[in-house]
Amino acid sequence: MREIVIGGAQLGAIQKSDSREAVVARMIALLSQAATAGCDLVVFPELALTTFFPRWWMEDADEVETWFEAEMPNEATQPLFDAAKQHGIAITFGYAESTPDGHHYNTSILTDKEGNIVGKYRKVHLPGHVEFDTERAFQHLEKRYFEPGDLGFPVWKNLDAWMGMAICNDRRWPEMYREMGLQGVELITLGYNTPSVNSQDGNEGLAQRLYHSELSMTAGAYQNASWVVGVAKAGDEDGHPLMGGSIIVDPNGFVVARAETEEDELIVHACDMDMCNFGKKTIFDFARHRRIEHYSRITGQTGVVYPK
Amino acid sequence: MREIVIGGAQLGAIQKSDSREAVVARMIALLSQAATAGCDLVVFPELALTTFFPRWWMEDADEVETWFEAEMPNEATQPLFDAAKQHGIAITFGYAESTPDGHHYNTSILTDKEGNIVGKYRKVHLPGHVEFDTERAFQHLEKRYFEPGDLGFPVWKNLDAWMGMAICNDRRWPEMYREMGLQGVELITLGYNTPSVNSQDGNEGLAQRLYHSELSMTAGAYQNASWVVGVAKAGDEDGHPLMGGSIIVDPNGFVVARAETEEDELIVHACDMDMCNFGKKTIFDFARHRRIEHYSRITGQTGVVYPK
Repeated sequence: MREIVIGGAQLGAIQKSDSREAVVARMIALLSQAATAGCDLVVFPELALTTFFPRWWMEDADEVETWFEAEMPNEATQPLFDAAKQHGIAITFGYAESTPDGHHYNTSILTDKEGNIVGKYRKVHLPGHVEFDTERAFQHLEKRYFEPGDLGFPVWKNLDAWMGMAICNDRRWPEMYREMGLQGVELITLGYNTPSVNSQDGNEGLAQRLYHSELSMTAGAYQNASWVVGVAKAGDEDGHPLMGGSIIVDPNGFVVARAETEEDELIVHACDMDMCNFGKKTIFDFARHRRIEHYSRITGQTGVVYPK
Repeated sequence: MREIVIGGAQLGAIQKSDSREAVVARMIALLSQAATAGCDLVVFPELALTTFFPRWWMEDADEVETWFEAEMPNEATQPLFDAAKQHGIAITFGYAESTPDGHHYNTSILTDKEGNIVGKYRKVHLPGHVEFDTERAFQHLEKRYFEPGDLGFPVWKNLDAWMGMAICNDRRWPEMYREMGLQGVELITLGYNTPSVNSQDGNEGLAQRLYHSELSMTAGAYQNASWVVGVAKAGDEDGHPLMGGSIIVDPNGFVVARAETEEDELIVHACDMDMCNFGKKTIFDFARHRRIEHYSRITGQTGVVYPK
């Protein structure tokens, strides 16, 4: 048994006017709960430090820049790293990253139990659009404010397990799970900010959106024999509702812990990494069963090409 | 609206001693039910004409050959093609194919409403093993009796929709759905023979096996905005139970029809192919959202390669 006690630290709403310091204080409070629960690792959501700013149309580059972090840790987040180190808890969380050479990414980092950053991931599958879209009920401007990640889907050994990170819309793409599965991943952590309403179909409903989120994560876990921990930023941000539905999924695709609220809420499960072994050795023993000679469209073309 | 009324024609057990003629008579009875129900297309299972013979260890090539079809249609199946044509129903079913040059495949064919074969697929993801395995509760010798399919995952226009076929274990592999999704598939039909017991883990249980089957098909449907129709051969074949769980899944990943028995049973749903359009134009608009530069492991390596 290789047990990692994992805390999924869902965050409730963060308003546009909330400071990073106020948010970090909430994250530290969740870390304290996690320490009491015996957690080894705590997973915070995507863009954990601020409101989900890509819903806001901004034309002023300086205004956009205020939502980004030029360093990590920085003054606002150092107390979080300190608390994690003090508790001996590894953490992962998302933030908007601004690089010295002017690039902008939707990023997440992973630390060891001493607060050292051991992994960085930049979101590959950016949803939404670049320009103001008058057809939508609200804006989703990730393609405007971020570039697609340039790091692929890396996997690291941390806490004696193979770990990878994904972010939000990545979870709907089987390519993400498979890229990590092909590196032997045992735990995929991912945070999300997902509107409770489909901006292009107001009738879709929250239940369907929660179902799609869970369906994607449970299938990705099962088909790669990996733990998946998906953690929401939830609740009503300045009149824009985000769904909850944070879950911990085992390598058989079963949900073993689930958030009940749309508030700050910790879900905890003792996850045995050795539960991945059976699936990886049998039905999903890739070396024996995959047939890459028939997968060439997956990397050979981006969009649909209809048969002649 | 482009409506296709689809019948999923689950078959109950076929014993080793049952003749192809007896099975075809059962299939024709299901076709008659489907005609009454107004079906345009009827989906029969994998290896529909015989018992699931890959559970039996055979060393005699002539004995193996008795389970294969050298022509399609042939004398035993011609009445099925005739009945389908008479009803004006397109059909798809699976059989063991033996080619003139000595190859053996786990194959399915698709017809139009006039009984003409318009598509053929050969199973790519063969489960099981080649040699007798003393560690298993029972044998699963697909890798012994079949070669992996050599046709890829083709998609055809039939009944005014883009259709593709998969077979059994293919349904657990997201690569299959994506290969077809990248050709604009709107309907994936697949048959299966799935033991109710995991030969390598007797404690797994039927409920988990049904869940994994459904999870794979619902995720594949959702993530490619396609209808998926999965049809079982079920029931107790000479003491070896096969699970049922035939379902019709809509392009949002919801099960809209489900078999209740492990017997011959027809499930029916009027499937609107235009329901695929929304997903294909928005969240799963591959051309806008996929990032093939980060998928290179999927086609570049078959098995797991751990990070250095």
